[in-house]
Amino acid sequence: MKPHLALAMGDAAGISPELAARMLVDPAVLAAADLTVIGDRRILDAGARVAGVSLDGLETVEDDATADKEEKAEKEIKGSTGNAGNAASSRRPADGRPLLLDLGQGDPLQIPIGQVSAESGRFATVNFQRALRMAAAGQVDGVCFTPFNKAAMRLITPGYDDEIGFAAEVIGFEGDAREFNVLEGLWNARVTSHVPLARVASLIDQHAILANLRLTDRALRAAGVSRPRIAVAALNPHAGDHGNFGREEIDIIGPAVEAGKAEGIGCEGPFPADTVFVRARRGDHDAVLTMFHDQGQIAMKLLGFEAGVTLMGGFPFPICTAAHGTAYDIAGQGVAHPGAMRNAILLAAKMARRNGPAGTPGPG
Amino acid sequence: MKPHLALAMGDAAGISPELAARMLVDPAVLAAADLTVIGDRRILDAGARVAGVSLDGLETVEDDATADKEEKAEKEIKGSTGNAGNAASSRRPADGRPLLLDLGQGDPLQIPIGQVSAESGRFATVNFQRALRMAAAGQVDGVCFTPFNKAAMRLITPGYDDEIGFAAEVIGFEGDAREFNVLEGLWNARVTSHVPLARVASLIDQHAILANLRLTDRALRAAGVSRPRIAVAALNPHAGDHGNFGREEIDIIGPAVEAGKAEGIGCEGPFPADTVFVRARRGDHDAVLTMFHDQGQIAMKLLGFEAGVTLMGGFPFPICTAAHGTAYDIAGQGVAHPGAMRNAILLAAKMARRNGPAGTPGPG
Repeated sequence: MKPHLALAMGDAAGISPELAARMLVDPAVLAAADLTVIGDRRILDAGARVAGVSLDGLETVEDDATADKEEKAEKEIKGSTGNAGNAASSRRPADGRPLLLDLGQGDPLQIPIGQVSAESGRFATVNFQRALRMAAAGQVDGVCFTPFNKAAMRLITPGYDDEIGFAAEVIGFEGDAREFNVLEGLWNARVTSHVPLARVASLIDQHAILANLRLTDRALRAAGVSRPRIAVAALNPHAGDHGNFGREEIDIIGPAVEAGKAEGIGCEGPFPADTVFVRARRGDHDAVLTMFHDQGQIAMKLLGFEAGVTLMGGFPFPICTAAHGTAYDIAGQGVAHPGAMRNAILLAAKMARRNGPAGTPGPG
Repeated sequence: MKPHLALAMGDAAGISPELAARMLVDPAVLAAADLTVIGDRRILDAGARVAGVSLDGLETVEDDATADKEEKAEKEIKGSTGNAGNAASSRRPADGRPLLLDLGQGDPLQIPIGQVSAESGRFATVNFQRALRMAAAGQVDGVCFTPFNKAAMRLITPGYDDEIGFAAEVIGFEGDAREFNVLEGLWNARVTSHVPLARVASLIDQHAILANLRLTDRALRAAGVSRPRIAVAALNPHAGDHGNFGREEIDIIGPAVEAGKAEGIGCEGPFPADTVFVRARRGDHDAVLTMFHDQGQIAMKLLGFEAGVTLMGGFPFPICTAAHGTAYDIAGQGVAHPGAMRNAILLAAKMARRNGPAGTPGPG
């Protein structure tokens, strides 16, 4: 049985609507997962026109056709309708044909194209929340979403930093979740992320590294890598040059790698950060654990990560999206490449399948 | 008239000897510069055998055939023979045919191949010192060297950190000199280099950035780029995200870029470090000024910098070498690729030519 995934429609002002439409007719996607799209029929149809695809056969399920839509959206955001238990949400696509769950929020066609707006942020936020709640309730096996614009999300949820923190709050998850950047055959995880560079060194400790190693190992196995080979990057230039340019490699990172090995994790390092991705590119490693944001991002973007996948790993279900953004500049042109979004859904499907039916830990 | 370059033979335990031999028969090199190789005939001949090239026609000039060689080498290192004014050093290659200046240090054939040794470090150190002194004395227009091994250099000069500091000390240079990494069409300079990551942020100031911008602009012009376009990298993730993840972009880097522009330097930024090299790769910039070592090195190594050139810029004459190392693991096999070393000599020749005859500032 195929996994059942929720695909939340993202920011409506860019390429998200056309990407969502394309996914619904993508043979690889349809072969890998049963999809319930969460969003709005009018926006999705507009996306289909831009993409030049037909969604005539798509069944739409109205979430609640009689309620005041704007008021309902506000409530949903504030959490007062914080469950996913209605009949519409629990419908499963039949015969492998996707469903659209239409949350009908106000008049989404008023969303200004190509710019940041509260309307667009609200649309994406409400869809994402519903998808997360459906997954937490076991109605779907995983969550995907077309790209968000963080500035628009912040107009609805001040302090919205990233999808990890938001998702954890929506479903009340208190475990360890992390963002992974995934290119074909190469994953990147990081110990620190959106913090000033001046603070990075003080945040590197054995506990954080080991927690990341465990999570990376688990996520790779969930994605089908039977014996993950994880390279750990150094913090300092030349990996500290035997302590001449910093001691974190000797005092912290090296011991954490040894601790990981002792747990059976296939990790190595620390490797100088400027050569570890050259090694990874030639196939020596399945993943690189970096110490800070740009250490990995500089490499991944040069390696083509804009066409890659972002995975929020560690939750009870996979959450995946395309690594690229909303691309306001090419909205409405029908030129957005669907490859990254397709790969996001395929990865979520693979990981959901290995986790077994929703809520039931699989054998892997 | 072609520029006259000194080519100092580097570490004798790796691929340096075969590279030196190859340079002496390389048509592009011979067309670009008159070469005086500084080293030892026996080691060079061994390199020629490995490389499979003939140096039969190469003229050898003995530096001082009667002195005690080991004692002489020690004196040279300690600076007691710290001049380049002997007759052998002042010989200029005639008819474009290279010369070998044989310093005859002890028995260099005792140098153990494929490992760090004091003998090998002494050989490289003495050759490099002589080349620097010849350039400072105006006997040559620039200096190149085949790869060094820092560990071997340290056995002779404790505290040897890099070629910049060593060269400055040898010739008594007190100006601002910096290392540039040069790939075809893309240069990288950095504000901080071999320091612990924990100290990087505290070392970033407007003065240092502006000094680097000036030097980068000058070096690019010396290499023939008429209007250098320099991108300045940010320090923090997402360039600080408007101050959310650090303020250096707002308080320090941005103002330094503006100060550079006010001086007529074609600089822009700060750009997020994880996209600036993607922009540079597609040709938007001639150089990227990074804030710390790995920020640039991660990108440059993925872009193929192992085949690139390292330039020590800011001295009164260019100093260039291949970016790769001594490659002890392939010593003696004749498989070392000569491309980076060739490019190093071609860059030094171009910059020396633009500087005019040694000691005479050119029009550029």
